[in-house]
Amino acid sequence: MTTSTARTDAAPAVAVIGLGEMGAAVAAAFLDGGHATTVWNRTPDRGDALVARGAERSATVRDAVAAGDLVVVSVKGNAVARELLASAGAALAGRTVVNLTDGTSAEVRELAQWVTEQGAEYLHGQIMTIAPGVGHPEAVVFYGGAQAVYDRYQSALGLLGGRATLVAADPGVPVLYGMAVHGTMWGLLNGFLHAAAVLSSEGLPVRQFLERADASMSALMAFLPSIAECVDRGEHAVEYGALKHHLPSVEDLVRESRARGVDDDLPGSTLALVRRAVADGHADDNYSWLVEHFRGR
Amino acid sequence: MTTSTARTDAAPAVAVIGLGEMGAAVAAAFLDGGHATTVWNRTPDRGDALVARGAERSATVRDAVAAGDLVVVSVKGNAVARELLASAGAALAGRTVVNLTDGTSAEVRELAQWVTEQGAEYLHGQIMTIAPGVGHPEAVVFYGGAQAVYDRYQSALGLLGGRATLVAADPGVPVLYGMAVHGTMWGLLNGFLHAAAVLSSEGLPVRQFLERADASMSALMAFLPSIAECVDRGEHAVEYGALKHHLPSVEDLVRESRARGVDDDLPGSTLALVRRAVADGHADDNYSWLVEHFRGR
Ligand SMILES: NC(=O)c1ccc[n+]([C@@H]2O[C@H](COP(=O)([O-])OP(=O)(O)OC[C@H]3O[C@@H](n4cnc5c(N)ncnc54)[C@H](OP(=O)(O)O)[C@@H]3O)[C@@H](O)[C@H]2O)c1
Ligand SMILES: NC(=O)c1ccc[n+]([C@@H]2O[C@H](COP(=O)([O-])OP(=O)(O)OC[C@H]3O[C@@H](n4cnc5c(N)ncnc54)[C@H](OP(=O)(O)O)[C@@H]3O)[C@@H](O)[C@H]2O)c1
Repeated sequence: MTTSTARTDAAPAVAVIGLGEMGAAVAAAFLDGGHATTVWNRTPDRGDALVARGAERSATVRDAVAAGDLVVVSVKGNAVARELLASAGAALAGRTVVNLTDGTSAEVRELAQWVTEQGAEYLHGQIMTIAPGVGHPEAVVFYGGAQAVYDRYQSALGLLGGRATLVAADPGVPVLYGMAVHGTMWGLLNGFLHAAAVLSSEGLPVRQFLERADASMSALMAFLPSIAECVDRGEHAVEYGALKHHLPSVEDLVRESRARGVDDDLPGSTLALVRRAVADGHADDNYSWLVEHFRGR
Repeated sequence: MTTSTARTDAAPAVAVIGLGEMGAAVAAAFLDGGHATTVWNRTPDRGDALVARGAERSATVRDAVAAGDLVVVSVKGNAVARELLASAGAALAGRTVVNLTDGTSAEVRELAQWVTEQGAEYLHGQIMTIAPGVGHPEAVVFYGGAQAVYDRYQSALGLLGGRATLVAADPGVPVLYGMAVHGTMWGLLNGFLHAAAVLSSEGLPVRQFLERADASMSALMAFLPSIAECVDRGEHAVEYGALKHHLPSVEDLVRESRARGVDDDLPGSTLALVRRAVADGHADDNYSWLVEHFRGR
């Protein structure tokens, strides 16, 4: 194999630590992009297919790290990521670690600081797609780290997803962005699946509902910018569409759910929030006021 | 005023019972559309502005009903709607009642049956906009009732919203469609406001997050059709993006929320659902499997 230093300018050599679903997809994307790619996984034979496609397999993390300009880590948790990187010892210095391992912002920041203390550079990559989406032109990756480091490896990192962006120098930010997208998604999916339970209890096909209600459903995302502005400004007063307007409709959904024997906890928890906000004097405030509830105040 | 029968072919005469925010907006839309419009409200002076714009005011519901081919009702609850319509006695026979009053599907069906028993025709209209949106070309109204009745009054009804559709003969269906949109919306907004609480606890502007995460956020709605298909087919197996893939990310959000003192009930309830589903053998099923939970089984 060519030495890593010889390749830095053209296509930097890449080491991929962790060949789970995500790590394997990432290694494949680098191989396809023409990068010399060295792989390591605790269970070595998970790398067989990659070796068949041209990857180099290392026996130790240290060897893999030594072979890569970019050291990409994708394992189960940041504690494991740290343990593995620590086993590389002095080989880490001078490398750029791209950590693709999910965790909390605090865990990721801790790892970033430790990596920096080892004399390596750190980028966090929050991959917003499932493994088979890696490399897709529409795949989003939120990066966090120094602009100069990101710029240096931008074309290599772009192989993981066409919609890569550096969102902050702070590696905690892409983590929080990822969580914000996921948290919104689970809210959406739970609300929709509850709705699906209501519709299907009446024998109404859910797919047909989506088609016929497309204009209303598509319009839902358009509420978010004004909600975000209210949150950012800390001002929630509105003339129309206030919490008092939501109240009777939430009550109807709770009664409908009960009458059908469908779960009433989900709409019931929304009802409790809206009722309490109205009782506390926020009847004329936008739904955005409920951010105060979620702030835990 | 011209008698109602003389106007049926061109622009049917309209009676609007109930001039709250919604009823007043509806009456204004009919007036603007050139319909002879008679109004009644319990508190009569709420009709003053409409009378100034050319509406006729009736002293009793009976008189209003007698003046309208279309009798539009928009009040607080279907029990009030029925009480008011009942006060019209025999004047109701031969009219078409368009009920815009929210309620459960059972309440609306009960009213529909009663109206039909009085010799009148019934349409339910589920208005999917706030009062100032009435009459907008993009405003959605889901109607339920007989096709022939809907067709007869389609151009008049189109004045309330450019995106009017008859979704079923059964007046309960538009009610359930409206609830499904609203329930999805509350889920989305709650998830987003929780995310906003997390982001703002770090000082991250929520509007800026939305702009930078636009590709990911816009993609969320695109998950719904395949989720709907799984629900309709009752088959939830998937190769990627299964419940086991969601689990660690939900755990991260719960831990992140706790660490920040942000509400952990909302992500915690999602975590409980996902954990239970995985424990019950649905690790390899799509998130859509959770419809079974919401079905109350
Ligand atoms: N899969 C996706 O679609 C997806 C999407 C977005 C983000 N992610 C994130 O990507 C990261 C990896 O996920 P994955 O889906 O690839 O997970 P996975 O398929 O379960 O693989 C887990 C990886 O971690 C390794 N590992 C676990 N414990 C270890 C230990 N104690 N020492 C050494 N290696 C250990 C595993 O090695 P063995 O093979 O030896 O077990 C394997 O390489 C996670 O942070 C995940 O949240 C995944
Ligand atoms: N406002 C919206 O943006 C909106 C959006 C979608 C759907 N809707 C639905 O439209 C319907 C009307 O809502 P709204 O917002 O117009 O309500 P509103 O402004 O609170 O007005 C309520 C109306 O009901 C009348 N009313 C209440 N109790 C009555 C009684 N016992 N006898 C006679 N009349 C009575 C009120 O008469 P008084 O004036 O005498 O009190 C008033 O006309 C509701 O089903 C609501 O869910 C409203």
